[in-house]
Amino acid sequence: MRPKIFLFGDSITQDSFAEGGWGASLANHFSRTVDVVLRGYSGYNTRWVLKVLEKVFAATQHGDGGINGAPVAITIFFGANDACLPDRYGAFQHVPLLEYKQNLHSIVSFFVKQWPTTHILLITTPPIDEEARLRYPYAYNPQGLPERTNEAAGEYATACIAVAEECGVPVIDLWTKMQQCPDWRKEYLCDGLHLTQSGNRVVFEEVILKLREKGLSLEAMPVDLPLLADIDPNDPLKSFQ
Amino acid sequence: MRPKIFLFGDSITQDSFAEGGWGASLANHFSRTVDVVLRGYSGYNTRWVLKVLEKVFAATQHGDGGINGAPVAITIFFGANDACLPDRYGAFQHVPLLEYKQNLHSIVSFFVKQWPTTHILLITTPPIDEEARLRYPYAYNPQGLPERTNEAAGEYATACIAVAEECGVPVIDLWTKMQQCPDWRKEYLCDGLHLTQSGNRVVFEEVILKLREKGLSLEAMPVDLPLLADIDPNDPLKSFQ
Repeated sequence: MRPKIFLFGDSITQDSFAEGGWGASLANHFSRTVDVVLRGYSGYNTRWVLKVLEKVFAATQHGDGGINGAPVAITIFFGANDACLPDRYGAFQHVPLLEYKQNLHSIVSFFVKQWPTTHILLITTPPIDEEARLRYPYAYNPQGLPERTNEAAGEYATACIAVAEECGVPVIDLWTKMQQCPDWRKEYLCDGLHLTQSGNRVVFEEVILKLREKGLSLEAMPVDLPLLADIDPNDPLKSFQ
Repeated sequence: MRPKIFLFGDSITQDSFAEGGWGASLANHFSRTVDVVLRGYSGYNTRWVLKVLEKVFAATQHGDGGINGAPVAITIFFGANDACLPDRYGAFQHVPLLEYKQNLHSIVSFFVKQWPTTHILLITTPPIDEEARLRYPYAYNPQGLPERTNEAAGEYATACIAVAEECGVPVIDLWTKMQQCPDWRKEYLCDGLHLTQSGNRVVFEEVILKLREKGLSLEAMPVDLPLLADIDPNDPLKSFQ
């Protein structure tokens, strides 16, 4: 039975199998060892997620669930929608900071209870380029103000990091990491929120790094069948006895 | 329980989640409806595959197997390695044409028996650019002759099509399809055998087309949770009751 890694998040997860996406890169990296399973829900915030956790992951709902189908790891990547400002056009996605933190706690607790052996990896919202958000609104925006700000995203990132520490699980601080690149707005973001291929690369590399720290690396994980390089050209069938 | 599509094949399947790969494109296309599960084994021919079918897919081996874990579809994409010439450096991968045909029959039969409701989709080997194969050998090649020829690949493609017809399953004739483009060698192949992003696009589009003919399209398949566009901004939680 090949191990699984679930990717659970919003649009930045849902879109992660597009060209150069971090999910596809993970699937490619682990092509012989791990199934990367996509559970991305565009636009979702942690409040909505709490309403659907059971349905998406509970054992009784599908054969993959339950302790027997526990993934080796799950990435939890929510916050970008919660961080929508409450007085802008994205208000219907906004979740107050304190509730976001509580919700994220509840989500982590759900998986800890459901899958005690699974490595949980939190990922913070990326930074926001407000000017680009004005150029790429996803709804009518008569206010002419961005629906997200980088400052607010930073507060949700900080809350996410706090939850990770409180729960004792690793976290990728994408908000800080990306801003270490001077040209982060153009280099990593395609519309001030979603990721370029280069931005996807950052997520991929950070996820690989965190998984490796938990012993989940290509070198440490068995392949289910012999690799071509390990098959004797003079007696190939020997590998399949 | 989200439906699954298995991708079963050699390196052209194993590499299908690389940048612009047809597997990643499928996963992206079906991001909210289907799990695309990669079972690609670089270098494998149908003779080796027959030795491992049970291990990879049998119900007793993993929770995803058996009738309850039946995928809605499986692509079977072998032949490029079988078609290695018996007197060149790739001889250890060669499988005689008649045996290839019999093996492919056995592989299809295995899935028909294991998963009677699953749509099986055969894919022929792509065409071969012999000059490029000389520039990109994967082993010491003192003969200076290509380990594969386009003519031989064509014979295996014809055999694959015959098996599909005999078994009553659809087939993508990639060998013929790709050669309809005058510049197929450069446009679709990166080393005379494996696919460029453009070549991957051909496979993706053909697979989508064949799945659609079997009723497996985005429009026909349910999403497990509401799409953002269907959520009422004035009362988002209504969608989750």
